[in-house]
Amino acid sequence: MKSNIPVMSLQRLPVYLNYLKTLAKDGDKYISSGAIAHALNLGEVLVRKDLAYTSAQGRTRVGYVLSELISALEEYLGCNDKKNAILIGAGELGYAILCYGGFKNYGIDLVAAYDSNPEKIGKSVSGKPIRDVASLDDDVKKMAVKLAVICVPAQYAQEVCDRLVASGVKAMLNFAPVILQTPEGFSVINMDVAANLAILSSMI
Amino acid sequence: MKSNIPVMSLQRLPVYLNYLKTLAKDGDKYISSGAIAHALNLGEVLVRKDLAYTSAQGRTRVGYVLSELISALEEYLGCNDKKNAILIGAGELGYAILCYGGFKNYGIDLVAAYDSNPEKIGKSVSGKPIRDVASLDDDVKKMAVKLAVICVPAQYAQEVCDRLVASGVKAMLNFAPVILQTPEGFSVINMDVAANLAILSSMI
Repeated sequence: MKSNIPVMSLQRLPVYLNYLKTLAKDGDKYISSGAIAHALNLGEVLVRKDLAYTSAQGRTRVGYVLSELISALEEYLGCNDKKNAILIGAGELGYAILCYGGFKNYGIDLVAAYDSNPEKIGKSVSGKPIRDVASLDDDVKKMAVKLAVICVPAQYAQEVCDRLVASGVKAMLNFAPVILQTPEGFSVINMDVAANLAILSSMI
Repeated sequence: MKSNIPVMSLQRLPVYLNYLKTLAKDGDKYISSGAIAHALNLGEVLVRKDLAYTSAQGRTRVGYVLSELISALEEYLGCNDKKNAILIGAGELGYAILCYGGFKNYGIDLVAAYDSNPEKIGKSVSGKPIRDVASLDDDVKKMAVKLAVICVPAQYAQEVCDRLVASGVKAMLNFAPVILQTPEGFSVINMDVAANLAILSSMI
């Protein structure tokens, strides 16, 4: 991971980027950390600290040049280096993610999906082919894919994960409700929908 | 929120619970914090600290009585108090979440979905009715719903959020790629899929 940015700061960077892009459409030229903080319901000092991890430079009185700040965030998040990602498990959730167009904002191209269901293999969703999971390992190596989204049922998640790790994938978004065992230096973000709703439920 | 449990600890509790339930099926009677730590790739001290937020009591040498530990986690996470939740936005992602059966493990009943599309209103998904979003406010008040899942497009998310807050919802799982403005004491967990993939991408 670049520098020692705290995970919480890293998670806010895409939020800043999305918000700033809406301003850029409106033709704004400058933006202050105070205005960002106010719009996103965050503390101003926190916003300034987060943005300091990027190459953006605020200017006295006017704040940041909007286009420069957007570029700095895009550069930091790697939006300009095109990266391929794959998805494993073309069930309902996998289908929804394949339909979602938001990845290209971050320079990520979801190039293919994998499934074991013969009725799905060979079809495509939003222009992305659904391929046989048997060809997963070879494909990952051939295309040098480093990013994967796991949407398979819980009982298959670790096996799929092991195959991805062995084939060279370096980071995964995991929707299966299990904690995956991965080697050191490997990044996983867990997106267990039910567990997160349970957490919210325990808070109220 | 109960006690001052750190968010990271709270997020691990459903993971422990899921894992322990698989052991219970196998007929195991005891489980040590060391065994949990090993299975889930976590530190033993961390596991013991996390579990200490619940009412579970470990015993010297044998560890926890498995059934007691499961009960303590279920009690802490409120799995035994049935709670109703609703979902707003029955698009692809909303559909996938409606199809997912994992909520009942946590005592959460996803009772209805809301959409503005006349072609969807009146239909049902996995036995859950899709209702007109116009009746959202009244329904939330009538059913005293406190939990919601937001799956609407970004531009509608804040409006939906404001209506839910005004009607009495207390916590939301937000899949829209925006930061929602909510009053103090309100809980939101953001599940922005593309942003999380971007974060992973910037780590590799």
